[in-house]
Amino acid sequence: MNNYKMTVEYDGTRYNGWQKQHTTHNTVQGKFEHILAELLEEPAEIHASGRTDAGVHAKGQVFNFKTKKNIEPEEILAYCNRYLPQDVRVLCCERADERFHSRLSAVRKTYSYTIALQKPSVFKRKYVYYAEDIRPDADKMRKAAELLLGTHDFLAFSSLKKSKKSTVRTIESIEIIEQAEEIRMEFTGNGFLYHMVRILAGTLLDAGLGKIDAATILKAFETGERQDAGTMLPPEGLTLERVEYDK
Amino acid sequence: MNNYKMTVEYDGTRYNGWQKQHTTHNTVQGKFEHILAELLEEPAEIHASGRTDAGVHAKGQVFNFKTKKNIEPEEILAYCNRYLPQDVRVLCCERADERFHSRLSAVRKTYSYTIALQKPSVFKRKYVYYAEDIRPDADKMRKAAELLLGTHDFLAFSSLKKSKKSTVRTIESIEIIEQAEEIRMEFTGNGFLYHMVRILAGTLLDAGLGKIDAATILKAFETGERQDAGTMLPPEGLTLERVEYDK
Repeated sequence: MNNYKMTVEYDGTRYNGWQKQHTTHNTVQGKFEHILAELLEEPAEIHASGRTDAGVHAKGQVFNFKTKKNIEPEEILAYCNRYLPQDVRVLCCERADERFHSRLSAVRKTYSYTIALQKPSVFKRKYVYYAEDIRPDADKMRKAAELLLGTHDFLAFSSLKKSKKSTVRTIESIEIIEQAEEIRMEFTGNGFLYHMVRILAGTLLDAGLGKIDAATILKAFETGERQDAGTMLPPEGLTLERVEYDK
Repeated sequence: MNNYKMTVEYDGTRYNGWQKQHTTHNTVQGKFEHILAELLEEPAEIHASGRTDAGVHAKGQVFNFKTKKNIEPEEILAYCNRYLPQDVRVLCCERADERFHSRLSAVRKTYSYTIALQKPSVFKRKYVYYAEDIRPDADKMRKAAELLLGTHDFLAFSSLKKSKKSTVRTIESIEIIEQAEEIRMEFTGNGFLYHMVRILAGTLLDAGLGKIDAATILKAFETGERQDAGTMLPPEGLTLERVEYDK
């Protein structure tokens, strides 16, 4: 079997997220499976590094798919980019080891979340979250971010009710980049639960606004209760930046 | 009378251009006049540095308006940005000399035109022109650009039929910036005729593709015939970058 690794970007604004669903149309996965099935002349099943929610963007989502057909990666890239809508694009297509799986093989993921501090540039408006008249304190956000680093049970920082699977994850780094017009957060870790980045970003924003303190964040880890963590921010500010694999 | 100078940006994608018209709605001028009339509690008439066509973007359009009302510039900026749609934004509002007129006082304007050489980044797609499978030669474009510099009658490089007004303009500089994914042209001059930048950009692209030669460009200056100049490129690649005034 040939195994192909695809790195893709998309503007998530008009999609119902990555994952193909029975009830809703217009997913990014659905677009790719449709186009690849045409190219391969057989049903295509693709596996992403993870889902992204409706409205979330990606600059470096990765998926893989297997086929008996032997097609040059350049041809797959060109074919997809010819038939994809303008808000989805293949950046790279390459042959992968047969054992490669975009989710199971991933060792690290980075998401960014951007909060506009003033009415955003019209050219960026779909890629930031704008709340009027807020002035978060970046140093308070950095202090709160230190509490989130490392290995914890992040159940409270997710929209999962309970989970049979482990909700323990490791966050390697959180960068808070403060600019005149926006605050940008970059989260790097070994994996993120459902809604986790949007809740982490909201918790840090709440900390920057003095609405949540260190004791409450630490309590959230203990209780696993969603209500002890901070606000969940909307999808438009979130971008999956990259997924990393061992060489 | 108080005279206010406003510097604004807009994503032109969904607008029928700058200028308010009787037959079409949804112009950028119309949006501003409506909001300013609400603020001033009197009809507002604004004068831009020039019109932009439907689908053309601006990062630094300038207009001015006069009123007997004395309102702080910060208040005007905040009010407009509160009520404007997300694809229009005021960057700056300041008091101007009573003689200041955004078009008549302008000494220099800069437009950019960007051609994508591969399927454009999904985050830039609305701001570039993408033609599949073209490989223009940037050096040929630079040589052709030299012919356009200086003071000429640019009638052939406009969509004007004939003009009672002068069609002589001076182009100070044309920069051709070649990158892996795109070629970007920057035109700076004392003024541009109707469709002129899109025709100049198309002429340079034609030159880069070997479709038009120096003799034809020089002939276009002589004849003033539109057919002797190059192709007109579509609006989405065009952005009004800035308008400059004497201090």
